[in-house]
Amino acid sequence: AHIVTLPGDGVGPEVTAAAVAVLKTVAARYEHAFTFDEQLIGGAAIDASGEPLPAAALAACQAADAVLLGAVGGPKWSDPNAPVRPEQGLLALRAALGVYANLRPLQVHPALASLSPLKNDRLRNVDVLFVRELTGGTYFGAKTRSADAATDECRYTVAEVERVVRRAFELARGRRQHVTSVDKANVLETSRLWRSTVQRIAADYPDVKVEHQLVDSMAMLLLTRPNSYDVVVTENLFGDILTDEAAALAGSLGLLPSASLGEGRRGLYEPIHGSAPDIAGTGVANPIGAILSAALLLRHSLGLEAEATAVESAVEQVLRYGPHSRDIGGHAGTDEVRDAVLEAVG
Amino acid sequence: AHIVTLPGDGVGPEVTAAAVAVLKTVAARYEHAFTFDEQLIGGAAIDASGEPLPAAALAACQAADAVLLGAVGGPKWSDPNAPVRPEQGLLALRAALGVYANLRPLQVHPALASLSPLKNDRLRNVDVLFVRELTGGTYFGAKTRSADAATDECRYTVAEVERVVRRAFELARGRRQHVTSVDKANVLETSRLWRSTVQRIAADYPDVKVEHQLVDSMAMLLLTRPNSYDVVVTENLFGDILTDEAAALAGSLGLLPSASLGEGRRGLYEPIHGSAPDIAGTGVANPIGAILSAALLLRHSLGLEAEATAVESAVEQVLRYGPHSRDIGGHAGTDEVRDAVLEAVG
Ligand SMILES: CC(C)[C@H](C(=O)O)[C@@H](O)C(=O)O
Ligand SMILES: CC(C)[C@H](C(=O)O)[C@@H](O)C(=O)O
Repeated sequence: AHIVTLPGDGVGPEVTAAAVAVLKTVAARYEHAFTFDEQLIGGAAIDASGEPLPAAALAACQAADAVLLGAVGGPKWSDPNAPVRPEQGLLALRAALGVYANLRPLQVHPALASLSPLKNDRLRNVDVLFVRELTGGTYFGAKTRSADAATDECRYTVAEVERVVRRAFELARGRRQHVTSVDKANVLETSRLWRSTVQRIAADYPDVKVEHQLVDSMAMLLLTRPNSYDVVVTENLFGDILTDEAAALAGSLGLLPSASLGEGRRGLYEPIHGSAPDIAGTGVANPIGAILSAALLLRHSLGLEAEATAVESAVEQVLRYGPHSRDIGGHAGTDEVRDAVLEAVG
Repeated sequence: AHIVTLPGDGVGPEVTAAAVAVLKTVAARYEHAFTFDEQLIGGAAIDASGEPLPAAALAACQAADAVLLGAVGGPKWSDPNAPVRPEQGLLALRAALGVYANLRPLQVHPALASLSPLKNDRLRNVDVLFVRELTGGTYFGAKTRSADAATDECRYTVAEVERVVRRAFELARGRRQHVTSVDKANVLETSRLWRSTVQRIAADYPDVKVEHQLVDSMAMLLLTRPNSYDVVVTENLFGDILTDEAAALAGSLGLLPSASLGEGRRGLYEPIHGSAPDIAGTGVANPIGAILSAALLLRHSLGLEAEATAVESAVEQVLRYGPHSRDIGGHAGTDEVRDAVLEAVG
């Protein structure tokens, strides 16, 4: 299997290197041949070539079996009036790969509940899979800017809603048969289209319980009863906000992975944390979000379920017994955590 | 002073009646003459007249010194394909009154910290004033719908951003001199306009510290360090989501008030909770959000600071010693809570 890595900016290179080390150990132990090709994206690509996603990087991703990304962005490139921004590279990549379904699983490890801002009784049995629409909505709609006004258009077609919602229902069948669809149907036309589409598709899944929530209520419910949810499906921007909120429950953003999938097997895998410029280069970034993203890569793009589970169990062991990085209350650096995972896998 | 009441739907009439009783007690005790005029809005107005904001109701609001609203909406009117919806009445009213700045104060009462989903050490010193832009953005932009697609346009002019941001800076001067502006400037054009406008206006307030956060990060930061914020200003939809999330921290939505202000003194006051159809008519709704909204009305529209403070102190006493309604762990009904506040005021 051929894997393209896009380390990107800030802590991206550090955590991506750790995840690659884990994939190499898996390859050795299970006798697979994985090849790796590193490409530029984001601020690093802008500095090198002026473009946030150089054509060579995109072509490499399109030819790969899977893409593993670190993070993009940072203060160096975040002037709101800059002509080109790191995030454009990531958005262009998501669109070009057609990875419309962004899966963000959330579980709260018992050993880390003390780090969560939420009271621990609320965290019992939290096991949510967010399915965020990733290639539509206001992220990709027409934009205008003049001296005295600006616009962003949010646009959804029925087909765009249908494919991601079906994915959510399919995933719910393999879990607890419960889909919560989040929209703002009392105000937005795109949300009304979203809701009617969910209602229609639900009829094809009589075994799955469906619930609709408004995005403002959902922002509250994620705190008051996070363990009432199974699969939560929503549009791009609402998913961006709600998954970061939910991530706070886990105690650290540094722990959480994501998988972005389209029609084929090829996927884009990235930790949900950002480039964390404040700690970049200091060797303290938590590599677990990136390592768990590599586990999702093994599962979804390479079909290697046993290998994915082996990585997840290794992480589970490290979370239980340590070493722990600073964001989760320990003193270990990126390499020490990586080595502990490697040993547990290997 | 002349006050129009719009009880609306669900628990709206019950909590509005309690707030009116408090205003009448204030009038008697402080020798003011308040006149009240009740009008229709929302589902109740649709049922009576086919329109969510009848012309007579709007005219009455425009002639009033202040408007006190209950809540709008409910399952009876929430078919996503219905031609007319209760929420349209509320949005039309906000626009017609020009109340572009929605103030939502958040404090966590020590007696209620045990109800919050957040660990209590995180709640110490939480005192945030959200300033949500209320008459622009995707709520009011052009919408389209066809059989296979829908659009919502988010639009902001510099003037719309400037007036609400200036209001936030002015409010911060009377508080802890710290403004946090929330946007999604790494993706949205309207957010880049928002951010540059905030940067420009900040120069007029050198005594106020300014911070920019992306909306996804902010959704997380509200949980991990809620006591680091003073005034938080943001656009309409982000404000809708973040203020509901923040409201969960207080232990119950039923406690929180809001004030919507424009250029003059006239304002629109409403609790932030919704119509709560599940408990409507059972006499158990918490009237405190509505009563505290009446206190804001006394302060902002009538300039009666001592009277506003008297109501807030009365509520403070009831929160400390009871009686408590069910949403905050007690057994008292709406009337019992109202009577306790009346006694403490009167
Ligand atoms: C970096 C940014 C464009 C991105 C997004 O908003 O999608 C990030 O926040 C994420 O959630 O992956
Ligand atoms: C009822 C609805 C239209 C409204 C909004 O979204 O503004 C409500 O959620 C609020 O926050 O006041």
